[in-house]
Amino acid sequence: MSVHKTITVNLGQRSYPIVIGRELLDGGFDLTSFVKGRDCLIVSNETVAPLYCKRLAPNLAGKTITSIELPDGEEHKTVATMQTILDRLVATGANRDTTVIALGGGVVGDIAGFAAACYMRGVAFIQIPTTLLAQVDSSVGGKTGVNHARGKNLIGAFHQPRAVVIDTDTLATLPDRELRAGLAEVIKHGAICELGFFEWIEQNIDALLAKDPAALAHAIQRSCEVKAGVVAEDEREAGRRAILNFGHTFGHAIEHSQGYGVWLHGEAVAAGMVMAAELSGIAASDVQRLCKLLQRTGLPTEPPTIAAEDWMRAMGLDKKVRQKQLRFVLLRSLGDAYFTAAYDEKRLGQIIGRKI
Amino acid sequence: MSVHKTITVNLGQRSYPIVIGRELLDGGFDLTSFVKGRDCLIVSNETVAPLYCKRLAPNLAGKTITSIELPDGEEHKTVATMQTILDRLVATGANRDTTVIALGGGVVGDIAGFAAACYMRGVAFIQIPTTLLAQVDSSVGGKTGVNHARGKNLIGAFHQPRAVVIDTDTLATLPDRELRAGLAEVIKHGAICELGFFEWIEQNIDALLAKDPAALAHAIQRSCEVKAGVVAEDEREAGRRAILNFGHTFGHAIEHSQGYGVWLHGEAVAAGMVMAAELSGIAASDVQRLCKLLQRTGLPTEPPTIAAEDWMRAMGLDKKVRQKQLRFVLLRSLGDAYFTAAYDEKRLGQIIGRKI
Repeated sequence: MSVHKTITVNLGQRSYPIVIGRELLDGGFDLTSFVKGRDCLIVSNETVAPLYCKRLAPNLAGKTITSIELPDGEEHKTVATMQTILDRLVATGANRDTTVIALGGGVVGDIAGFAAACYMRGVAFIQIPTTLLAQVDSSVGGKTGVNHARGKNLIGAFHQPRAVVIDTDTLATLPDRELRAGLAEVIKHGAICELGFFEWIEQNIDALLAKDPAALAHAIQRSCEVKAGVVAEDEREAGRRAILNFGHTFGHAIEHSQGYGVWLHGEAVAAGMVMAAELSGIAASDVQRLCKLLQRTGLPTEPPTIAAEDWMRAMGLDKKVRQKQLRFVLLRSLGDAYFTAAYDEKRLGQIIGRKI
Repeated sequence: MSVHKTITVNLGQRSYPIVIGRELLDGGFDLTSFVKGRDCLIVSNETVAPLYCKRLAPNLAGKTITSIELPDGEEHKTVATMQTILDRLVATGANRDTTVIALGGGVVGDIAGFAAACYMRGVAFIQIPTTLLAQVDSSVGGKTGVNHARGKNLIGAFHQPRAVVIDTDTLATLPDRELRAGLAEVIKHGAICELGFFEWIEQNIDALLAKDPAALAHAIQRSCEVKAGVVAEDEREAGRRAILNFGHTFGHAIEHSQGYGVWLHGEAVAAGMVMAAELSGIAASDVQRLCKLLQRTGLPTEPPTIAAEDWMRAMGLDKKVRQKQLRFVLLRSLGDAYFTAAYDEKRLGQIIGRKI
């Protein structure tokens, strides 16, 4: 058996483990106890499936496995793609005891999780994230969904997985650009509530970029701990959980304005975090410190050129809007975020207008 | 103010009232306390909207109301129709504080509820059912969803409303055939766990068919009480709640085989209940008693001609199948149902084969 660590997401009856380690695929971690019945549907994509899909079989000894490959890319994160999963479930006679296993990055996990949430009003679901972004962020917390032509993740469900299994060896094949984009969310977790972790990232960014396994494992573990803690406090984002969206109001607007997939999510969040830090009115040295770490990570710290009215329109569709009053996740200081409607409107105008 | 009765569905934080009375529309019952924010989207259909949509305005004083009309009919209970609601929500800039109000029969409630469950991962939802079937069954309990080409309600979510408002005056315009179909579910509630209520229906069936307001109000109230009690015990149908599906395994197969909408749901359930009663092996006099009441109600007690293999295939897709082992809701006696995989296979063969 492989060596691994387990973090628990504490959600009462819906609690589940996040298992982190090397060599967990190829039978290194027995998944059968998380499979409710006999049948599994592995949902992957055309890039990930050839690498890992067949290797999962030893983890599922005695189970009946079918699989489906989705097209790769955020532009396929649609209701139509989700329906192909539902059609497959129906075609295989899947019942309420069927388990859906998401094997891939955040797009695969979000679509597969939403299909699992909707099929027969909810079947069991396991996340096996294979990108850093999915491992540190999207696979944990139960948010599933797809994009609408006019906004990201506008359609979805809260549907917690029964387990998240993170094999850090899968990062060996991850393209550098995606590694950097994933590190944006790792940095976010430090910036919003763990200054000590932020400092650790500053000290270890070179090792992380060099894919040092021990450094990556620690970054993933600490990120999952931060996220699991926030989610356990506020599963359905009535309040506190919103801090996980630091940088995302601006980030989603960037992604939306450029067309999904042109900027990677993590890249948009990186630039968005700098904008949110500026809007926060914290010490310029703290904004600079965030900028510097993002730059060392190879991430953008400036948004693309977007007209001010396009910023406002794109942000008006953001899920964090209540009563058509914009809200933002701001920083009291580096390592201490909060969610608020009380922001400096003049400063917002300067920030989104500065490129015009 | 109108006179009305209130039943509470006890689901902890998700508890909600079912309000039953006359003259509740036209301002007779203030809905504003159930509207989370300022904006409401009323979802109705082309038949119901002209009758009631504008009349709702006084119930929503001070709120911003938009509305959408769906095409009428079970054949439109699809993901595509649900998407038209999501598109409207996006187009109006709806946010997490928007409230979706379903005004219509079971199809409208199921689709609108599923859209409310999925939009931004769940917004508030109010049910205003205008058919007897929706008032006694589908509007209570939080089951929402749409049909798949290969099976009924295969795609959906559990999403509890914040309130169910039943104005019995809406039944004045209900066609007789739909009234009878709704009474099938009323009779079901007696048959599964309230012999005394079953007896009351036997004594009052003529008044119910004549749309006597007091009789209808009592039937609706007792039906909602039975359903609310079962749902409170087992919200997500892990066990006990399945008894509400008495007659539905056969009934869904009838609907599916004939094409949705040819048999009304209640008609299919009526014939399905007789088949399930026969499968139960209870006293022939009890089966006869059920048959007689359904016949007095003007409901079918025999299924259409369906080949045995088509029965099995249709039932194999039923959500109540676990481990590909068929389960049925059977009766120990009239007024006492249970959910089981232990049924008489030979008798099942006789029941589904008898028409070949």
